[in-house]
Amino acid sequence: MAHFCSINGEIMPAERGHIFINDIGLLRGYGLFDYCRTYGGQAFMRDLYLQRFERSAALMGISFPFQKDSIWQQMDELHQRTGMQDISFRLVLTGGYTPDGVTPAESPNLLIITEDIPYVAPEKFTKGIHIITDEYLRELPEIKSTNYVRLIMLRHQIKAAGAVDVLFHKNGTVSELSRSNLFLFHGNTLVTPDTNILKGITRHVTLQLAKNIYKIEERPVTLEELWQADEVFTTGTTKRIMPITMIDGKPVADGKPGRNTLRLLEAFNELTKSINA
Amino acid sequence: MAHFCSINGEIMPAERGHIFINDIGLLRGYGLFDYCRTYGGQAFMRDLYLQRFERSAALMGISFPFQKDSIWQQMDELHQRTGMQDISFRLVLTGGYTPDGVTPAESPNLLIITEDIPYVAPEKFTKGIHIITDEYLRELPEIKSTNYVRLIMLRHQIKAAGAVDVLFHKNGTVSELSRSNLFLFHGNTLVTPDTNILKGITRHVTLQLAKNIYKIEERPVTLEELWQADEVFTTGTTKRIMPITMIDGKPVADGKPGRNTLRLLEAFNELTKSINA
Repeated sequence: MAHFCSINGEIMPAERGHIFINDIGLLRGYGLFDYCRTYGGQAFMRDLYLQRFERSAALMGISFPFQKDSIWQQMDELHQRTGMQDISFRLVLTGGYTPDGVTPAESPNLLIITEDIPYVAPEKFTKGIHIITDEYLRELPEIKSTNYVRLIMLRHQIKAAGAVDVLFHKNGTVSELSRSNLFLFHGNTLVTPDTNILKGITRHVTLQLAKNIYKIEERPVTLEELWQADEVFTTGTTKRIMPITMIDGKPVADGKPGRNTLRLLEAFNELTKSINA
Repeated sequence: MAHFCSINGEIMPAERGHIFINDIGLLRGYGLFDYCRTYGGQAFMRDLYLQRFERSAALMGISFPFQKDSIWQQMDELHQRTGMQDISFRLVLTGGYTPDGVTPAESPNLLIITEDIPYVAPEKFTKGIHIITDEYLRELPEIKSTNYVRLIMLRHQIKAAGAVDVLFHKNGTVSELSRSNLFLFHGNTLVTPDTNILKGITRHVTLQLAKNIYKIEERPVTLEELWQADEVFTTGTTKRIMPITMIDGKPVADGKPGRNTLRLLEAFNELTKSINA
């Protein structure tokens, strides 16, 4: 559920938030977003999220005439209005109101929306999640664009398989899940794809947490390699560090969350508790 | 310029038309559209356009709980309000207001917008247009989705090349321009790609006009083949039948609009004059 929003700086209840129909994000898909959350009432790593948001804009060619401080101030004010301790923030940027149906405007449209943090059942961490695979590569993998049509079209197939997400691969190489990154362990070596992906903030934090404990390889990962892995997991703002125990109906290793994965999850949870303490 | 719009059946001036920010077309790119125009005050081939609109919805999995008559009635009323003889209609359908940011709603959002018919300078027909090529294949070529990010990102490159549009190709095979179909003539044989394209209504009409005059081949077309063609042209609702005389800075044949192309254009213009007479 969304609570409040800021539309180009104007704050209002989310259910009143609207954009005009000549928005080029709506008409032509020319839009991107980012998504972060709070822990203990404080926005977690929001500088990194905002940097990525700005980078997506630069890569897509959408102007970004905003001061970081002004965005933070809006986020704080929105957060305050909710009266809630922990929320998530959705930041959406489109190419603005198009004059002719296809040319971006000079000013982009910036939406900041506060939302409930999605509930994740605890047993997903203790039992792991099931996923399917799909041959697909996002058009602009380094940009957090608004294009999620593939995931939405696959939703019935995911559900029918008893799964909760999809891992994309192309030409035998895996890239990422629909909204999160992929990691695997071969013994004590932590491996994660490094190209054709959206580089997640949780991915970054995970690598930081892991680097003094495990050998790390950021490199292309084949689909075949998943079946040789001892552990597979995914990282994301909502999923945090989430074991994957079944892929396309086949168990990963012994079908249980791996020890190293759970160790990293614990370290991540500690970090989110301590960072604002 | 847009004049009037209907948002889920409610008619208002276009500048007042808005959608709420949880529209899944805006947030996740889950939307599609169609676009038709009038000639002599009458919507041209609107049954075919509307069929295609409905087919896009079926392919993308967006529900289409509308009676054709009701859409036509809204189009007529919008048209009447403009007080103009000839206009174009943009029909946009999204997966509706998402309850959770990623799941489509039960009811889609339907927008019908009247717009000015884009001006096309007469010399574009007499001199032909210049285009560039780009290695790209639309994700869902048979669906008229709202994803035009590639075109928008290429706009500066197109302009810098003195061109007005882009022809997409992949693995040596051409598909379509950003918003129109491709044809070429080898002598009196008319050739047009038949896969990985959005099948245009003007493409369909062109094939109908041509079938008793020329040999027709609907088949894959290689990029190389463009340089052996005697004539190249594109078809679309706005461009009608438009000669292409320069591709990537190289002239097509002698660099002038071809005789057969102009003959088809004349036949098309006759049809648009006579169809409502």
